[in-house]
Amino acid sequence: MSKLLAVGTVAFDAIETPFGKTDKILGGSGTFVGLASSLFDIPVGIVSVVGGDFPKAHLDMMNSKGINTEGVEVIEEGKTFFWSGVYHNDMNSRDTLVTELNVLENFEPVVPESFKDASIVMLGNLHPATQMSVLDQLNGTPKLVVLDTMNFWMDSALEDLHKVLKRVDVITINDEEARQLSGEYSLLNAAKKIHEMGPKYVVIKKGEHGALLFNDHNMFFAPALPLASVFDPTGAGDTFAGGFCGYLAKTEDISFANMKNAIIYGSNLASFCVEKFGTERMESLNFQEVENRLQAFRDLTQFDIKLS
Amino acid sequence: MSKLLAVGTVAFDAIETPFGKTDKILGGSGTFVGLASSLFDIPVGIVSVVGGDFPKAHLDMMNSKGINTEGVEVIEEGKTFFWSGVYHNDMNSRDTLVTELNVLENFEPVVPESFKDASIVMLGNLHPATQMSVLDQLNGTPKLVVLDTMNFWMDSALEDLHKVLKRVDVITINDEEARQLSGEYSLLNAAKKIHEMGPKYVVIKKGEHGALLFNDHNMFFAPALPLASVFDPTGAGDTFAGGFCGYLAKTEDISFANMKNAIIYGSNLASFCVEKFGTERMESLNFQEVENRLQAFRDLTQFDIKLS
Repeated sequence: MSKLLAVGTVAFDAIETPFGKTDKILGGSGTFVGLASSLFDIPVGIVSVVGGDFPKAHLDMMNSKGINTEGVEVIEEGKTFFWSGVYHNDMNSRDTLVTELNVLENFEPVVPESFKDASIVMLGNLHPATQMSVLDQLNGTPKLVVLDTMNFWMDSALEDLHKVLKRVDVITINDEEARQLSGEYSLLNAAKKIHEMGPKYVVIKKGEHGALLFNDHNMFFAPALPLASVFDPTGAGDTFAGGFCGYLAKTEDISFANMKNAIIYGSNLASFCVEKFGTERMESLNFQEVENRLQAFRDLTQFDIKLS
Repeated sequence: MSKLLAVGTVAFDAIETPFGKTDKILGGSGTFVGLASSLFDIPVGIVSVVGGDFPKAHLDMMNSKGINTEGVEVIEEGKTFFWSGVYHNDMNSRDTLVTELNVLENFEPVVPESFKDASIVMLGNLHPATQMSVLDQLNGTPKLVVLDTMNFWMDSALEDLHKVLKRVDVITINDEEARQLSGEYSLLNAAKKIHEMGPKYVVIKKGEHGALLFNDHNMFFAPALPLASVFDPTGAGDTFAGGFCGYLAKTEDISFANMKNAIIYGSNLASFCVEKFGTERMESLNFQEVENRLQAFRDLTQFDIKLS
């Protein structure tokens, strides 16, 4: 079993969906990656920053899941990153109401000594220079570096993004971002172009339309599980990434065949995340439930055609 | 092997995509369903109508593929249905430039004697009353009735649509149409509501995002094959339906397990259709190419997770 280091936000979210609305609740990419990956019972450490307003109970909850929060800096005089948004009826689009960067504005991640030898590193969606500074603090080169990014950094920090991509093994982005980064409409061609930028593996997240994994001439697709109700999509992408990394850390096998499985686990975990608001479902989830749902993914995708 | 009867348009299309544009070329739902299903070497008959301007060479081509065109009425003094459209850069949306119904306006399908005993009937996207009149002409009840429809008929002929749905086993519609017809956003819930309207099987076509099959508590997903270039999406949905029906007619097995395979064949054939303009690729396609591409669908979807 490998050590997983996850860098990302630990934050407050206020969310409105057609099913209701919340006050400030626990959120953030680092939180969701941590909760998802900790289900695999691996050593996982989060690097992030919060303000003095952040309840210790949240950190205690994470610790109780086996998540190491030594790397979560607490700036007592600062305020925690806050995001607020409202989802439209179709749950596929949302409007941001509030983004208060707060302590995130001058975030300089510090990797704790105990995680400088992590084999798998998940660089959450932050400024590419911040992502790079994490890699620079590590002892040697990790077995696998996974990077998440978004169009905002392509627009505002493309040069830095290209620099860090050279040191990345797996990139996770959505379909529109893959198109923007590569200038190619076909996702197959987009993945090829992105391979040339550094990442040997390209994971394209399509939300309710599933996820694609590309590597050289191989490709694999994991559908999203059709659900009777999607309560709140917040964190689903990070949960997907956390499941992907957690499974790889657990199995210590980064072959393409095993990455297929990791993609399925990512999609599996994401299907739980959306069942409740915020982190609620991920906090209550146990691994047996995940294993049980695996059969639904098999039924959904496996077929047996005898060639005629 | 079962007899397949397909009712749909045989038409002229003029298409513009980012890759080029065509003059009036052969198109129509009946044409694409016929070409796709004929690859399975089954008796397939098309019921449609064309004008005096329709080249006999097109009918000869269909006959050479084993497609029975006795049911294609030729109205010498009329003009063939004509559609013209332009696809946007993303190939997922298009604008209709011209729709000339011509002979289609008063289309009264006549099922030839030789296909009144068809086991599988594919009702192409036409007025639901026209679809119903086809069922009324048959000898007894077919083994499987498949119906394609669209939002236009939900808006303009909903009562007739509900009437014909009571006699339908499989409905194929896109995701937005499934939501409109059912009033449910979740596709899982939409399928349940549509089951109650008649069809035991609901096939939801999502274009580049694949297709879902629902039946009672079972669901199955077939992805679209990621391609380096999609040249022209026209006819892909009808080709999918033709592949689905053709495979079921060939195998004579309408179990859920075999419908999974039929969905994969539909997606497989559709991946060829989009490689060239109009019917060009489907006219040149042979079954061995289809069988060869099956491996790409296996690689794309099959995984092997051992439970821990």
